[in-house]
Order: sequence, then C-alpha cells, then structure tokens
Amino acid sequence: MMPLERARCLVLGGGGFIGTHLSRALAEQGARVTGFGRRQSYPEALVNISFVTAEFSDTTALAAALEHQDVVFHVLGSAAPEASNRDPVADLTNQVLATLRLLELCRLSGKPKIVFISSGGTVYGIPTSWPIQEGAATDPICAYGAGKLAVEKYLGVYNRVHTQPYVILRLANPFGPWQRPGRGQGVIATLLQRTLRGEPVEIWGDGKVVRDFIYIDDVVRAILGAALYEGPHHIFNVGSGIGRSIGGVAADIAGVLGQDHAAITHTSGRPVDVPINVLDIGLIRRELGWNPSVPWLDGLMRTADWIRSA
Amino acid sequence: MMPLERARCLVLGGGGFIGTHLSRALAEQGARVTGFGRRQSYPEALVNISFVTAEFSDTTALAAALEHQDVVFHVLGSAAPEASNRDPVADLTNQVLATLRLLELCRLSGKPKIVFISSGGTVYGIPTSWPIQEGAATDPICAYGAGKLAVEKYLGVYNRVHTQPYVILRLANPFGPWQRPGRGQGVIATLLQRTLRGEPVEIWGDGKVVRDFIYIDDVVRAILGAALYEGPHHIFNVGSGIGRSIGGVAADIAGVLGQDHAAITHTSGRPVDVPINVLDIGLIRRELGWNPSVPWLDGLMRTADWIRSA
Repeated sequence: MMPLERARCLVLGGGGFIGTHLSRALAEQGARVTGFGRRQSYPEALVNISFVTAEFSDTTALAAALEHQDVVFHVLGSAAPEASNRDPVADLTNQVLATLRLLELCRLSGKPKIVFISSGGTVYGIPTSWPIQEGAATDPICAYGAGKLAVEKYLGVYNRVHTQPYVILRLANPFGPWQRPGRGQGVIATLLQRTLRGEPVEIWGDGKVVRDFIYIDDVVRAILGAALYEGPHHIFNVGSGIGRSIGGVAADIAGVLGQDHAAITHTSGRPVDVPINVLDIGLIRRELGWNPSVPWLDGLMRTADWIRSA
Repeated sequence: MMPLERARCLVLGGGGFIGTHLSRALAEQGARVTGFGRRQSYPEALVNISFVTAEFSDTTALAAALEHQDVVFHVLGSAAPEASNRDPVADLTNQVLATLRLLELCRLSGKPKIVFISSGGTVYGIPTSWPIQEGAATDPICAYGAGKLAVEKYLGVYNRVHTQPYVILRLANPFGPWQRPGRGQGVIATLLQRTLRGEPVEIWGDGKVVRDFIYIDDVVRAILGAALYEGPHHIFNVGSGIGRSIGGVAADIAGVLGQDHAAITHTSGRPVDVPINVLDIGLIRRELGWNPSVPWLDGLMRTADWIRSA
C-alpha cells in the first residue's frame, strides 16, 4: 500500500455527508481524489476535487472512474433502514447488485483496495450482549442491514477467489457538519435543528433506545487508517463504544444549546429499531491504533454551530 | 400448521432432483401439490401432480401459483458453486433477487410457510472446527454460498417485520436416484456413472477433501418434518454428520459395484472447495426427532441401481 499522499482515490458517494469529509481529508493528505455520486450536496466544500456526477448503477461511468485507482472508498448511502423495509427489492438492486457489479469492475481494473462502509447499527440485529464484538451473530432485522451484510460476504468471496484487497468498517451512528437534518438518517442533526427552531423533538418509542454515536472527524480518521491497514483482519467496528439513550441525547442537546430541558413528543416505536446498539471498538484500537478523540459535547457543539450557520 | 394430508403445497424447483422426490412424498401424504419450475426432468415420476412450467423470475406466474398455498418449498437449484464464481451477478439476480420477489409475493398472499433449502456445504465457508453447528461463523468462499446466506438473512427480516413463517434447512451433499450425473453437482452420481462405464474417475485435488453425504429419502423426511415444525428454531443442518473423503467415496463406489479398485485421475484443486465440511445434526435430531436412516452403502447401491436402469 502506497502512502495516501501519492494515492489515487475514488470516493463513491463522494458528494454526501461522509464522502465530503473524506474527500477533503484525502486531498489534504495529498491524495489524488475523484468523487463519484449522484450529486454534491456541498460543492463549495469540494473545490479542486474531481467529481463524476453519475448513478452508481451506471457501469460505464463507474468503469471509467475506476481506471488506475489505488483505493476505492465505498461510502455510498442507500435508503434509510426504515425505507429499505418498504422496498427491499430496490434496496437489494441499488445496494447489493450495484456493489457486486463494482467488484466485477474492480477485478478487471487492477483490483484497487476497497474500503467499504458497512452498518454497525444494523448488521448485528438485536444483540444478546454488548458492546458488540465483530464476531457476534449477524441477524439483521431490516433489509438495509441484510444488504450491507450481503456485500460484506461478497467482498470475502472476491478476496478468496480473486485476492481482492478490502477492509470493512462497521460504522455506528456518525454525526457532524454536512449531515442534513430531517432526512430519516442522522437523528442528532434532526434533534439539533428542531431544538434550535424551538420545535418539539419527536422521538420514536420511549426514548430508551440506546445508540452509539461517533463524530465525523473520528470516522474519517478510521477510514484513512483502514486504507493503509495491511494486517490480517478485514472487519472493524467504528464507534465510540459508549451507549447513549435517545432521551439522554435530546437532553444533552438542550444543554449544549443553553435550554432548560428538551421538549419531547413520543411516537410509537418502529420495528426496524433494535433496542440497543453499542459497538466494541477494541479491535480497531489494537490493530489500527485508532481511538475516538472528539469529546461528545464538543462534537454536539461543532454540529450545532454548523446547523446555525447553514 | 395443518397436517400435510390436507395442505396445499407449492414446490419451487419441483421438477428437479430434490423437487421430484419431495413432490411425490407430499402427494403420498395426501397433500395437494403444485410443482413450479423450468422443466420436469422426470415427468414420468410426477403423474397426477400439477406442474407450472415457468421461470422463477416470472413473477406473474409465481403470484398465480402462490394463491391459497399453505406451504412453499423452495428447493430451486441454482448454478453450481463453481459456476457462481464465474458469474456472481447472474447468481445474485437468479437466486437472491428472485427469492426476495418471492418473499414480497408471499407477504401479499397470506404468508404461506416457507421451507428454504440452503447450502450446508457452502454457507459456512472454511470451518475452524467440525462437525459444524448452526451457530458457527458463516463466511462463504463462493458466490453461491453468499447468495444462499443472503436469502437466509432476508427470511429473518421478513419474519421479524411481517411475521413471515419460515424454516431453513442447510443441506449437506444429497445423493440418490434422479440426480443427473455430470452436471457439476452430485459428485456421487458422476462417480457412479463413470465407474459403471469403466471410465477413470476424475477427482479435484488430492481426494482428501471431506464431505457430508445424505441420501435423498432422508432429506425428504427432513423437509416434511420442517414443514410441520412449530418450535422456536429457524435453521437446521441436514446431513449424515459423518465426514467422508472423496477418495474414500470413490473406493466405496468401486466396492459396491464389485470392482477391485477405483481408477482415479487427479486434477488440480478448485478454490471454491472447502477442505472439509461435516455438519453437526444434533439440533434437528432434538427438535424434529429426525435421524438419517438409510445406511451409506445401501444408499450407494440404490443410486447405482437407478443409474444402471436410467
């Protein structure tokens, strides 16, 4: 693996929340970055970065973009978990089938290393113990998680059959600037925006659902580390390792914004939500020397600053 | 679950090796059987059994066949494991995407119980210990296994989200009459035919690859048991629980046919072959009271008799 300052990097989903941060970080390291995706959500953040505007299903555009790449970062969002259950066939087609076509193209294009962002929040399903280690059972309860898991397994097959290099990051709930509120992903962005507007915060279920939140800068450092990793492991959890209830998060957000308390309305729980999800991050700590570095309230404040200014 | 003697049963892949045996057994139990598939390999074995000749991808034909069914048996073959790695996109489309469409149709058709035949030989990948229990790691090394595993996970999602009833049987290597030799599946049929013809037997690798073989009558009893099972488990291994090397199988076949020794030629091993695969069958013994009943050499002799007469 060459150092990133000379690497040619393709960022699939390079115009989205994670992809925008990642593309900038790669460019700062001196990598030659090409973004690829349906759109640039924040084009002003991606000056001097090449970008191919195309659908992931456009194999002609994808094949052209893959030429001479050293690393392919697959950070494409898909439908949110809830939406995936409304149309699992679309999720399978857009997510799994398109990624399998990508693997075929990589096989024919010099086998660039693939860093795939999987979903630590959905591939495990309902855990029997936590924090959840990478070797735990994987029984997703939504099609989105089943699709992410299927891609993971196909990566393993391509590695075995074609020596395709890859690293999978099972990501907890990322948050930070450029995550757009109210899109069904990014509960923190949505809670922040509603609280800033003085609107009541709507929480699915009783607010006791526990999640693992990780600030985007820490996520990006994990992705860069994964690109350079040459050890024997292929799958790493990326999270804070800390469980926070949604109700507690809403209270912390109110505190960060200087409000006495959060105005919360509860709606019925969603079957797609596992009651608890906290990732064990011992493996990535040991293998990559990675640690979450941005304190929780700092991350919330930085995100709040961005939402205020956006 | 109603007893099978009054049940309406749809057998997807009803014209193939397993499907032909299963359809006959269901009819013998008094079930109202409809087969569905590309063709009937042995139409003379399926007299008085309804059959819909259609592609699995034909959702109109499938939706019509699904009406008023109590149980859907998914015993569709797909490409052999080796072929699946040559065209993983086709395997995903024909196997996983088509089955996901089936799940959607079942959801809209009264949610008949689904009995899905998965692959005990490929979903586990290379085992770290054996016999392999159902809770072992599942890291397939061929696209066929990754596809079977993906279908398993989607069944779990549909059960969780839509209360879709299902049982998965992870089948070892079945053998017996009506398994066609020389098709890339069914090593025993192929070895028997070549030995009967006096042709040298071609074995991939050094003959030390170990597999778990199970006679078709035992497989069919396990499938019938799965259709009636109402306990808490969803995934069962179905095999003999006994590991046999391919070299040993060739020798046993020569013995059954009254020959001194097998004439074996060795070819290079295939990356798709795991070195050993033996299934732990403790769970299905306990939960279904099922046990393999046909002795190994008996099964070989019955299969040899059929190949001689075919």
